[in-house]
Amino acid sequence: MTTSKPLIVPVPLGARAYDILVGRNILGEGVEQIKKLGVRKVALVTDENVHSLHAERIIKTLADNGVDVAAPVVVPAGESSKSYAVLAKTCDDILATRVERGDLVIALGGGVVGDLAGFAAAIVRRGMRFVQMPTSLLAQVDSSVGGKTGINSSHGKNLVGAFHQPSLVIADTAILDTLPERELRAGYAEVIKYGLINSERFFFWCEENWQQIFAGGPERDEAVAHSCRAKAEVVVRDEFENGDRALLNLGHTFGHALERIVKYDNARLVHGEAVAIGLAQAFRFSARLGLCAGQDAGRVEAHLKSVGLPTRLQDVPGGAGSVDAILDAMTQDKKVKAGTLTFILAKGIGKSFIAHDLNKADVAAFLMDEWNS
Amino acid sequence: MTTSKPLIVPVPLGARAYDILVGRNILGEGVEQIKKLGVRKVALVTDENVHSLHAERIIKTLADNGVDVAAPVVVPAGESSKSYAVLAKTCDDILATRVERGDLVIALGGGVVGDLAGFAAAIVRRGMRFVQMPTSLLAQVDSSVGGKTGINSSHGKNLVGAFHQPSLVIADTAILDTLPERELRAGYAEVIKYGLINSERFFFWCEENWQQIFAGGPERDEAVAHSCRAKAEVVVRDEFENGDRALLNLGHTFGHALERIVKYDNARLVHGEAVAIGLAQAFRFSARLGLCAGQDAGRVEAHLKSVGLPTRLQDVPGGAGSVDAILDAMTQDKKVKAGTLTFILAKGIGKSFIAHDLNKADVAAFLMDEWNS
Ligand SMILES: NC(=O)c1ccc[n+]([C@@H]2O[C@H](COP(=O)([O-])OP(=O)(O)OC[C@H]3O[C@@H](n4cnc5c(N)ncnc54)[C@H](O)[C@@H]3O)[C@@H](O)[C@H]2O)c1
Ligand SMILES: NC(=O)c1ccc[n+]([C@@H]2O[C@H](COP(=O)([O-])OP(=O)(O)OC[C@H]3O[C@@H](n4cnc5c(N)ncnc54)[C@H](O)[C@@H]3O)[C@@H](O)[C@H]2O)c1
Repeated sequence: MTTSKPLIVPVPLGARAYDILVGRNILGEGVEQIKKLGVRKVALVTDENVHSLHAERIIKTLADNGVDVAAPVVVPAGESSKSYAVLAKTCDDILATRVERGDLVIALGGGVVGDLAGFAAAIVRRGMRFVQMPTSLLAQVDSSVGGKTGINSSHGKNLVGAFHQPSLVIADTAILDTLPERELRAGYAEVIKYGLINSERFFFWCEENWQQIFAGGPERDEAVAHSCRAKAEVVVRDEFENGDRALLNLGHTFGHALERIVKYDNARLVHGEAVAIGLAQAFRFSARLGLCAGQDAGRVEAHLKSVGLPTRLQDVPGGAGSVDAILDAMTQDKKVKAGTLTFILAKGIGKSFIAHDLNKADVAAFLMDEWNS
Repeated sequence: MTTSKPLIVPVPLGARAYDILVGRNILGEGVEQIKKLGVRKVALVTDENVHSLHAERIIKTLADNGVDVAAPVVVPAGESSKSYAVLAKTCDDILATRVERGDLVIALGGGVVGDLAGFAAAIVRRGMRFVQMPTSLLAQVDSSVGGKTGINSSHGKNLVGAFHQPSLVIADTAILDTLPERELRAGYAEVIKYGLINSERFFFWCEENWQQIFAGGPERDEAVAHSCRAKAEVVVRDEFENGDRALLNLGHTFGHALERIVKYDNARLVHGEAVAIGLAQAFRFSARLGLCAGQDAGRVEAHLKSVGLPTRLQDVPGGAGSVDAILDAMTQDKKVKAGTLTFILAKGIGKSFIAHDLNKADVAAFLMDEWNS
């Protein structure tokens, strides 16, 4: 097994503190850290794709190092696994491995597996420890960090879940080599989001280095580690999302509305693509409100385009619905507090802020312009 | 509305501290306290029986006092509602009321509704506040206090759930007037359990006052309040059940085994009846091991009998299975840590303790004697 030293990003959450290990082929080091958790037995949850590509090798490495892993729990790939039915089956399958309360659940997969298995870990025996082994770029830079877990309801995405921090995150960037190009691009939208939120410098660096990030050079490790650091900082300030953590929703209010409009049909739009459009829109809207320079909005859009990400309503295959439909989908978002519209807007690249009480008419006018542009 | 001043039992859990209100017809005071929580909207969950007996009046009282209550979420009565399917429906029904994250769920019912609705509140929108309005004696003295919520899996009872403390518990003892006699008796087993754990005095008091407790005199309020205080004390010492809280399982290791053996068929055995047998057994077993006086075991059994509760394996309608079956059911219990048997035993009435590493052969021999006695 080739193995190397990981970058370590600490998440200092007091009694719930943990480390994120980032690097190429760091499984060996990851297993050492898992052993330090004092684990008796491990239940590993993964999806069909990741199972056939990576599970065998990882389970063997764990077993070779004396960690007792039960037969893996394998769920169908894709968002539809974030359902009550798959959650119930996952909990039962974890229980069937006869893990006890001090034991461990490992979530090996993209954001879907992380959210689902993390939630199952939160509720099986009223809470088991779990380790995230994110295998998609999106999961490595976003969903595996911060402790939000959950599933979808017919009433909306992520409406049922738990705050449950992992005990460790192992982000092996080599595992992204098998990720489909489209998923890599989608995850990349979340990477540059961190630059857009509060680091102009990181955004500029991404503009220069994105090819190496995609190709799997050391820049990939740096980008993942920076993203995790950025997310961890926000999470430590506001673990339960009562304030600041909302900044991470930059691009997501527009984005979620579009996902809802295409009925979460991944063939049309995956999450990161919706976020890419949302990021471009958040900057164009900010420019329109006179908050940020039009140049900045243009620069954001140009970079998203150059990596092959969508940036406009017109880019949604099959159409993004009417302005009314988008507005309606937006106000159903759970981030809408007591009826008022909250957006994450920007005063420039790296200068995002939470804008409360936005005027619905302004949003409508903006969308109308977007639609006709 | 007749209304009176409640007894108040505080549960000082720091940021999760709350009060338990106990008394006859205290709904008025309860509503005042709910209003103090600063609630915008309430989703009320109840079961069919309690719904037809009490829900209308309670919803009206809330509404008359300016609390906005959505149409109640009604689940079937009985243990079978602690399932994945009813949980999913309950979450969706709560979401359909359009409550938001700062809003409130009220659990109006026995332990089943409390465990189910409390769990739903723990996971809808990753955690909503909730108020327990326990309507069975068991729920008032046990399940509504302490924050354990959950459902059953095919692998066992309460294996999926969350620690989620309520914001308030309203135990209106008048509501017990409609409770079937058998359920009242079953709940009473948990009441005297508190005496058996650490208060000889309370047990003696129960022996003298049980008729008034059943009849609904002020002794009922006292018994409920004492029980809540006793439970709260343990919970405050050990919220997440890493140690001391296990004392509350006095009578439950034997009891759970019997429930499992009758396949949770309430026609044969309800939880409190199983606990009653378990309490008598724990004392007889303690006496057999020379830990407590035979007299004490006799006294416990006599009191259980005098209120009409079962005390022996032979009392289980349809039989309690073989000694092997009981032992097997016992070692499946989730309280069995890494294979060793842990029991709550007693050095006398009010002198219970956690006994680790019990010899399985001793338990087997005891059960054999019980069986042949
Ligand atoms: N919890 C959070 O804080 C948070 C944050 C953002 C997003 N999310 C959630 O994350 C989910 C999206 O995550 P995602 O984009 O990773 O989706 P995903 O888990 O469905 O993965 C995308 C696809 O890539 C495949 N895949 C994953 N890793 C692979 C690999 N190494 N090689 C080959 N194929 C691989 C998967 O099987 C799947 O088909 C959404 O449900 C979203 O709600 C959660
Ligand atoms: N969370 C905890 O800490 C904890 C502790 C002990 C028990 N429990 C759980 O509690 C459950 C048992 O609770 P339970 O005994 O209250 O069962 P329950 O909720 O099923 O109630 C028993 C029966 O009484 C009916 N009922 C309730 N209140 C009534 C009233 N005022 N008038 C008329 N009928 C009424 C119910 O509809 C039901 O048919 C079990 O699932 C057990 O696991 C939980």
